Amino acid sequence: AMGKAMGLVGLLLGLVLVPAVLVSTSLRHGTPRTEAGAGPAPADWELAADAVPEDSLWPLPQWLRTSPRQLQLAPGRFQLVPASGPRWRLCFPGRYYEYMFGHSRRRRWGRRPLAARAEPELSELQVVIEAADPGCDSYPHLGSNEAYHLTVTEPVAILKAYEVWGALRGLETFSQLVHEDDYGSFLVNESEITDFPRFAHRGILLDTSRHYLPLKSILTNLDAMAFNKFNVLHWHIVDDQSFPYQSIYFPELSDKGAYSCNLIYTPADVRLVIEYARLRGIRVIPEFDTPGHTQSWGKGQKDLLTPCYSGEQPTGSFGPVNPILNTTYDFMTKFFKEISSVFPDAYIHLGGDEVDFSCWKSNPEVKEFMKKQGFGSDYAKLESYYIQNILDIVSSYNKGQIIWQEVFDHKAQLKPDTVVQVWMANNYAHELSSVTGAGFPAVLAAPWYLDYISYGQDWKKYYSVEPLDFPGSEEQKKLLIGGEACLWGEFVDATNLTPRLWPRASAVGERLWSSRNVTNLQDAYRRLTNHRCRML
Amino acid sequence: AMGKAMGLVGLLLGLVLVPAVLVSTSLRHGTPRTEAGAGPAPADWELAADAVPEDSLWPLPQWLRTSPRQLQLAPGRFQLVPASGPRWRLCFPGRYYEYMFGHSRRRRWGRRPLAARAEPELSELQVVIEAADPGCDSYPHLGSNEAYHLTVTEPVAILKAYEVWGALRGLETFSQLVHEDDYGSFLVNESEITDFPRFAHRGILLDTSRHYLPLKSILTNLDAMAFNKFNVLHWHIVDDQSFPYQSIYFPELSDKGAYSCNLIYTPADVRLVIEYARLRGIRVIPEFDTPGHTQSWGKGQKDLLTPCYSGEQPTGSFGPVNPILNTTYDFMTKFFKEISSVFPDAYIHLGGDEVDFSCWKSNPEVKEFMKKQGFGSDYAKLESYYIQNILDIVSSYNKGQIIWQEVFDHKAQLKPDTVVQVWMANNYAHELSSVTGAGFPAVLAAPWYLDYISYGQDWKKYYSVEPLDFPGSEEQKKLLIGGEACLWGEFVDATNLTPRLWPRASAVGERLWSSRNVTNLQDAYRRLTNHRCRML
Repeated sequence: AMGKAMGLVGLLLGLVLVPAVLVSTSLRHGTPRTEAGAGPAPADWELAADAVPEDSLWPLPQWLRTSPRQLQLAPGRFQLVPASGPRWRLCFPGRYYEYMFGHSRRRRWGRRPLAARAEPELSELQVVIEAADPGCDSYPHLGSNEAYHLTVTEPVAILKAYEVWGALRGLETFSQLVHEDDYGSFLVNESEITDFPRFAHRGILLDTSRHYLPLKSILTNLDAMAFNKFNVLHWHIVDDQSFPYQSIYFPELSDKGAYSCNLIYTPADVRLVIEYARLRGIRVIPEFDTPGHTQSWGKGQKDLLTPCYSGEQPTGSFGPVNPILNTTYDFMTKFFKEISSVFPDAYIHLGGDEVDFSCWKSNPEVKEFMKKQGFGSDYAKLESYYIQNILDIVSSYNKGQIIWQEVFDHKAQLKPDTVVQVWMANNYAHELSSVTGAGFPAVLAAPWYLDYISYGQDWKKYYSVEPLDFPGSEEQKKLLIGGEACLWGEFVDATNLTPRLWPRASAVGERLWSSRNVTNLQDAYRRLTNHRCRML
Repeated sequence: AMGKAMGLVGLLLGLVLVPAVLVSTSLRHGTPRTEAGAGPAPADWELAADAVPEDSLWPLPQWLRTSPRQLQLAPGRFQLVPASGPRWRLCFPGRYYEYMFGHSRRRRWGRRPLAARAEPELSELQVVIEAADPGCDSYPHLGSNEAYHLTVTEPVAILKAYEVWGALRGLETFSQLVHEDDYGSFLVNESEITDFPRFAHRGILLDTSRHYLPLKSILTNLDAMAFNKFNVLHWHIVDDQSFPYQSIYFPELSDKGAYSCNLIYTPADVRLVIEYARLRGIRVIPEFDTPGHTQSWGKGQKDLLTPCYSGEQPTGSFGPVNPILNTTYDFMTKFFKEISSVFPDAYIHLGGDEVDFSCWKSNPEVKEFMKKQGFGSDYAKLESYYIQNILDIVSSYNKGQIIWQEVFDHKAQLKPDTVVQVWMANNYAHELSSVTGAGFPAVLAAPWYLDYISYGQDWKKYYSVEPLDFPGSEEQKKLLIGGEACLWGEFVDATNLTPRLWPRASAVGERLWSSRNVTNLQDAYRRLTNHRCRML
């Protein structure tokens, strides 16, 4: 497997690697280090237990080799150098200076000489992006290449990647390698790292409907996501409780459906989130969940929801989106046209979970429609009828679709590339098997509902999940494109979001990035402890 | 019961109250408001459900009456006026201006005229402290009088209390009555409130050993405690994990036992915490837990801990404090002399919980000592021997003592006024019965371990505890002096302390302050929601 993966890396990076000097990190964590094999003698390449530089790397790279030889960095002199021309400078993430040397760099350091030390100096990190178009002005997408190769040797370190997205991941890793000693010197061990993600879709779900999250919370979370190499913000932006998305075509949705007129996301706010995410290699996938979870939509859009009845009389309350009216589809056509244009990602999440049929069942016009369509009393068919209409609308805007598992379970006719998100904790392995068995790509969320809290170190539970542990062929396994840690917002707002989500979500981050056999809890605990300190 | 309590209030405040116009808040919450009795007709004194001013009061006062008649406050002109001479000004809490009008008061308001409105103006709140010495320079103590009487009528409101501690509680309540309408006007309803705490000891335990808490976190928590009328900070300052208390006599304890040399509480830090607490009517009770939970003590104090043996050989590890050496008691004599002088409170918490006997059992010298003392193989007797020595030492400094329940359970000879803190969740009612049956005052912590977290609104569980639900006589019930919400620090640090503790601890705050029959969860939820917003 190592040889095969190495071949893959070579292919991805267009590099010729020398297998003999590489140590698989999975070997390190599966068996004693001294069995790591054909490299230089262990004594040359290993450090005292309290100074192993990879003990702070999170998520653990696919392969790494470190030497006890340390290089010194001069904060006032060290350079991140783009090696592929001025274009790259456009998207150059200067924030990594701060991550490495702290906020006080300019004030404290200037260009004063290095402390007189034995260590030679590392003067720069050259960043090489190999693609003709490095992608600086584009958005990350499901097929983005996040692989990179990092060599830290005197006098210059080299980070090679095919696209800017890999370079960003490599910069994160490089910054994690840099550490400050007790005397304030910045050091890095000579190292070589080859890295790429295990899964392409590594997401965090934030819910801004149950509680409004101020922009600052969302941006802080995007920073934390980048520290953990997550690449998808699943923005569950509206729900029953509130509609904070300010629509351009339908401003009344948030005027009447938001908690208040200032607890909204304006078009400028949304653009800011998307751009801040882009600069971190993170896709923003908005979710506009219908036909259920839509109470807040009904406040600003007349006749959108189904009137519920008690016998012959309307009760005055409303159920899911009304699937029998042409006006519903007229609205959705216009609404999703806007969404397709506001959000650049190739996918939109259309929800489709937890549709309560009781209101539809109570409504005489809906019952009449059921009869006319020949649905009998199977309201799942009505749900599928609705969803298929929505899928067709969204497809017409050239957007891919993600839906919660019920849409698949209720046998809606899905486009072949529709992504099914599996969320029900009960026997999710079986569901993954069914979804991929039917040929659909799947995203796993079920074991990672981080809004459920309990006493103690529950990160171990999230960490110990093996996403591919479901019955299925090799082809089916390839259809599992990733997973998401979900922080539903019933009991989460700006006051507790960050400490509740991090570093618990880091466990999911490593599971989705690192090699399958990086599973040693003790080793993970040590690295996660260091990683938490660095994030703070 | 109402008449009796009213008599008590009258006595406490030295006021003649007119029972006819008072409405017991417990009636309000136990039965419909219209049954509240002999006051003015309900229509005169009740507001629409969405504008009831007491819907934001937390904890609910013992008696209150409000009128729909509103008074307007001019932030630039409204005065808090001490009515008992210049002494009172020394301890006058100016922070209540900010709580009522926000930080921008001076900048925004100046002395501009009130908006032209129908409401008459409330120009000042007179604060009357009736005791000859209002206590401005003293420390709050177990017997402090926290009762107050508040009358809000045009043109001046009057807050009467016997001591400054009651005045502080009344100011908190008054600030909770002031609300801002949609147009930025500050309004207060005409009201009359008579209030006093149900229990004298209402504490929060913070643990600064498992994780160090920066001073700022402790001070923020003291603010939150004052908002909820808590009056005891139980400072679990050291434990196995670290010794952050910087001792004057024994600086090596923190030099070697703290997590690092800057994660300590210097004498100046401790003084600041004590003074900040005092200004909020909060006692600071330090806990120095021995003989168990003392691993960190051993790092800076040679021979203090018991060497553990395996057979004939010392293992190199250490157990609880060594109870058989004179040097132990010499150390403790000097150490607790310092503690008694640094912490002004009349009580010190001496711990005494969870002593593991296995190391004592392994040590040949301890075994020899057991034989000599005639303890047989009953190590609880050795524990009691140790604790009684410590209790004697601390008594000699005229300090009262609080101990965890095991010290009582293991039959140590306690001074009559030693307070026993009940923490074991299993059958705590029975333990309360035993402790008070033996004549000791008790503090209840068992049902309020707030470090245990779970999904959802667990505040209801804490709120629904009735502390006096234990078998015992009236005399025994009087011995339950209060309770504490405990936030142990295994999984708590500055990043999550505040959102984890508040408003969950508010539930305990109301249980310990308000009348026994203030138990309506729906009403509490509404008030707690408002109270949380105010705290934020």
